[in-house]
Amino acid sequence: MEISVGELARRVGGIVHGDETVLIESAQSIAKAGLRDITFAVNELNLRLLSTARPGAIFIAAKFIDHALQNYPDRNWIVVKDPLGAFIEVLQLTRPQRERSTIGISPQAVIAPSAVIGPNCNIYPGAYIGEDVIIGAGCDIHPGVVISADCRLGEQCTVYPNAVLYPQIVVGNRVIIHASAVVGADGFGYRFQQGRYNKIPQLGNVELHDDVEIGACTTIDRAMIGATTIGEGTKLDNLVMIGHNCELGKHNAFASGVGLAGSVTTGDYVVCAGQVGIADHVHIGDKAVLGAKSGVHKDMEGGKTYLGAPATEEHDQFRILMALNKLPELRKQLRELESQVTELTRRLADQTVTVPDVANQVA
Amino acid sequence: MEISVGELARRVGGIVHGDETVLIESAQSIAKAGLRDITFAVNELNLRLLSTARPGAIFIAAKFIDHALQNYPDRNWIVVKDPLGAFIEVLQLTRPQRERSTIGISPQAVIAPSAVIGPNCNIYPGAYIGEDVIIGAGCDIHPGVVISADCRLGEQCTVYPNAVLYPQIVVGNRVIIHASAVVGADGFGYRFQQGRYNKIPQLGNVELHDDVEIGACTTIDRAMIGATTIGEGTKLDNLVMIGHNCELGKHNAFASGVGLAGSVTTGDYVVCAGQVGIADHVHIGDKAVLGAKSGVHKDMEGGKTYLGAPATEEHDQFRILMALNKLPELRKQLRELESQVTELTRRLADQTVTVPDVANQVA
Amino acid sequence: MEISVGELARRVGGIVHGDETVLIESAQSIAKAGLRDITFAVNELNLRLLSTARPGAIFIAAKFIDHALQNYPDRNWIVVKDPLGAFIEVLQLTRPQRERSTIGISPQAVIAPSAVIGPNCNIYPGAYIGEDVIIGAGCDIHPGVVISADCRLGEQCTVYPNAVLYPQIVVGNRVIIHASAVVGADGFGYRFQQGRYNKIPQLGNVELHDDVEIGACTTIDRAMIGATTIGEGTKLDNLVMIGHNCELGKHNAFASGVGLAGSVTTGDYVVCAGQVGIADHVHIGDKAVLGAKSGVHKDMEGGKTYLGAPATEEHDQFRILMALNKLPELRKQLRELESQVTELTRRLADQTVTVPDVANQVA
Repeated sequence: MEISVGELARRVGGIVHGDETVLIESAQSIAKAGLRDITFAVNELNLRLLSTARPGAIFIAAKFIDHALQNYPDRNWIVVKDPLGAFIEVLQLTRPQRERSTIGISPQAVIAPSAVIGPNCNIYPGAYIGEDVIIGAGCDIHPGVVISADCRLGEQCTVYPNAVLYPQIVVGNRVIIHASAVVGADGFGYRFQQGRYNKIPQLGNVELHDDVEIGACTTIDRAMIGATTIGEGTKLDNLVMIGHNCELGKHNAFASGVGLAGSVTTGDYVVCAGQVGIADHVHIGDKAVLGAKSGVHKDMEGGKTYLGAPATEEHDQFRILMALNKLPELRKQLRELESQVTELTRRLADQTVTVPDVANQVA
Repeated sequence: MEISVGELARRVGGIVHGDETVLIESAQSIAKAGLRDITFAVNELNLRLLSTARPGAIFIAAKFIDHALQNYPDRNWIVVKDPLGAFIEVLQLTRPQRERSTIGISPQAVIAPSAVIGPNCNIYPGAYIGEDVIIGAGCDIHPGVVISADCRLGEQCTVYPNAVLYPQIVVGNRVIIHASAVVGADGFGYRFQQGRYNKIPQLGNVELHDDVEIGACTTIDRAMIGATTIGEGTKLDNLVMIGHNCELGKHNAFASGVGLAGSVTTGDYVVCAGQVGIADHVHIGDKAVLGAKSGVHKDMEGGKTYLGAPATEEHDQFRILMALNKLPELRKQLRELESQVTELTRRLADQTVTVPDVANQVA
Repeated sequence: MEISVGELARRVGGIVHGDETVLIESAQSIAKAGLRDITFAVNELNLRLLSTARPGAIFIAAKFIDHALQNYPDRNWIVVKDPLGAFIEVLQLTRPQRERSTIGISPQAVIAPSAVIGPNCNIYPGAYIGEDVIIGAGCDIHPGVVISADCRLGEQCTVYPNAVLYPQIVVGNRVIIHASAVVGADGFGYRFQQGRYNKIPQLGNVELHDDVEIGACTTIDRAMIGATTIGEGTKLDNLVMIGHNCELGKHNAFASGVGLAGSVTTGDYVVCAGQVGIADHVHIGDKAVLGAKSGVHKDMEGGKTYLGAPATEEHDQFRILMALNKLPELRKQLRELESQVTELTRRLADQTVTVPDVANQVA
């Protein structure tokens, strides 16, 4: 595909500064963009990469264009309201994906007679759909997926290869579950009796609300009673662990490696960076942000950023970290101070002797 | 289902304090229990939730009943020896699960002719059983499970969908392996030669002893020689990593995210909280407890609780943590002390000068 | 199998010190070796285990033989250039593995008509090969593996059960992908707009170069644009996360639990110990070593060892750790020093009063 900068600008409703006739073949990040690539810049850091990079054209917001023209006058700009949005639009244009398959229900899938599959679904070969499962319209169930008895999926869900839903899982609309994710395995609950761990039956289930996305190899355990719940719009990255009876709010975003023990609850818009751990029964308030590798063992108020293990507010942690880095130096200072005090003490002792001497001398 | 408090008490051998005629429909945790739910209380923290919660009835131990009657007189209690046990019993009664399937050996499973399957097993469609595998009586092998050549399973094991056993794995009785767990992949062993990592053949296997439970997406690598061993009754949560040649004792319990490098050995009753990491060749003694996110790089004596990375005994870590939190303040104190000492030094110097003056003056 | 020490020595080109007639049945690690086992020793730590262990024979390097004969005179040694190499050779001899299967392309595999499979491949039952996939000669594709449309694999690759390749993944030669690994799931990329996370299409792919090995349940996300790249010879352990657009150099080795956010780049020969986390867009230089549980949020120069979270150079971290351990003591020292200074101040104040008195007295 070749498309001129002028034509691109027309498509995304942008205004060109530079050469409208330059031909664009594909879209690239600014650092890697070549003469026939379009890219985008949303901050000065992006722009600074132009000292070495030579993209064919750059999407930019109106507020940066003066700075851009002044500092990089020989480039081709397209001013748009939403540079990243325009870039994604071109990306999709220049890299057309396979159309969604329309294989329907494969005869090589294993589907229980009591299961109900909505219209316009693709059930791939090797998928397994258990007794009394209900699947809404327009879902894609990929090869190797296991949806166990009594699960219910809404419309337009995608379940990628080899993901597993244990029995009774309730899934909303437009939910995406990536490969090898496991939803609804038993919670880690035992009674320690006579020197053995005896399993507590895990009789609850899991609910994934609308627009949830679950990453590859992420595991969400079923509740002991009630439901482990993932709120609307919440996104979990790969290799995340959500323990039994957790209840996540809406529009949370958890990066890879995050682990929640049992019965954790979160408000809306909670963000966890990578490898965060949260102890059981803790509540994380609305819009709290937990920095990478934080370890949380008590309730955290919303609207704040926390760091460290045990996690504290960001600025406290920065103070601690700064102090920590100065710790070896601080020990040295303390040792010096000790010698000074010893010296002072000695001198004062000497002097205490001296003074009477003076007195005696003058006496 | 509806059942009266009196009838419930008879079933679990309890004694009612309150209204025997109240009808119970289901079981719930104390915080969520409504007028037709039964719940249980095993400590004062549970009881305190009764200030807002209104459960239909509460299982309680004899030792708490006086306190309970005095503080919450208008509730319905069933005194039992084991409140949680009674609660679980009712939970199972009010939430009957599907009976275990009796599909037998599905013709849609792939089973090597040389494999031997015991009586009363369910081998689901899409399961794969390799050459010379032996499976004991009463096992459930779910869809998508792969049991490779030469594996041996005992009786009454459950292997959940898409779990994988590499060749030669030895599994005891009543073992549960959750979805997408991987048992017996190659250990991470290489020789670094001429600038390349050359694979060391991993010729050992894995042994899971009786009553072991393995969580979803947990991986247990095969030994280079000998066997990676998980002792009787040991429970591993989801997303746990056990490296090659590890030997875990009996009745260990490891929470999600725990990672053991190669050749780690543990005694019996070792507990690891979430996201613990243990370096290779380390030994953890009987009944040691490793707190969440601990990092262990040397042997740990049994019977103690450890925290931190590098892990130390709990009370040492608490002292360090407390000191750490006061570190910014400590720096401030040190700075103040420095000025005081500087001031003292100055004053002492002045005085040292002053004293001879006095002497001179009087001379 | 039984083989004499003399015969073993001839096979591996070694020289016997001790009894050539002793019969060896198998190979074992030094701590576990019995009278009919051969083992190997590559350092004095190994040799010290001989105070209790009684192996039938020991492979040893020439440089240790004098020390060995002097300290453990009654043992049987085989001096070889490469003790571990000789040991592995015997290990393979005494534990013959099943020969590679020659099942060819199973009729129970699901293979798209447009897929091209090279000669001498085994495609096991239950494997799924999508449209336009190309697989080179001599590959093993195990049961339950899903290779999605437009993937290309080189020669002699092994993909273990239930591993998943999303569309368009490019795999070199001799690549090993372990069970339940997921290559090419969507990167964790969203735009936060009007209170919702909207998915950014992830239109790039993943490239695994020659001789890469990917551990069980490891996930490598596809790029948003371009390719997430794993360089030649790089080995990833189990449960590792590689975010979208990461580019790993050659011969990296990452232990289990390592997590890389998006767009991380590494040089060659980078080593990450277990549970390391690296923030997005960070670069790690050639031959850098990141210690277990390190947390990295900025570029790290090559050739150095780093520890801690936030990671610093090893010796800085050791100084901090040492200081940290002395922190409670340091607080005590500071308190003592404070009282000393208070006392000094008091005494100096007393004296200051005293001195004029002396002066007055003498006046």
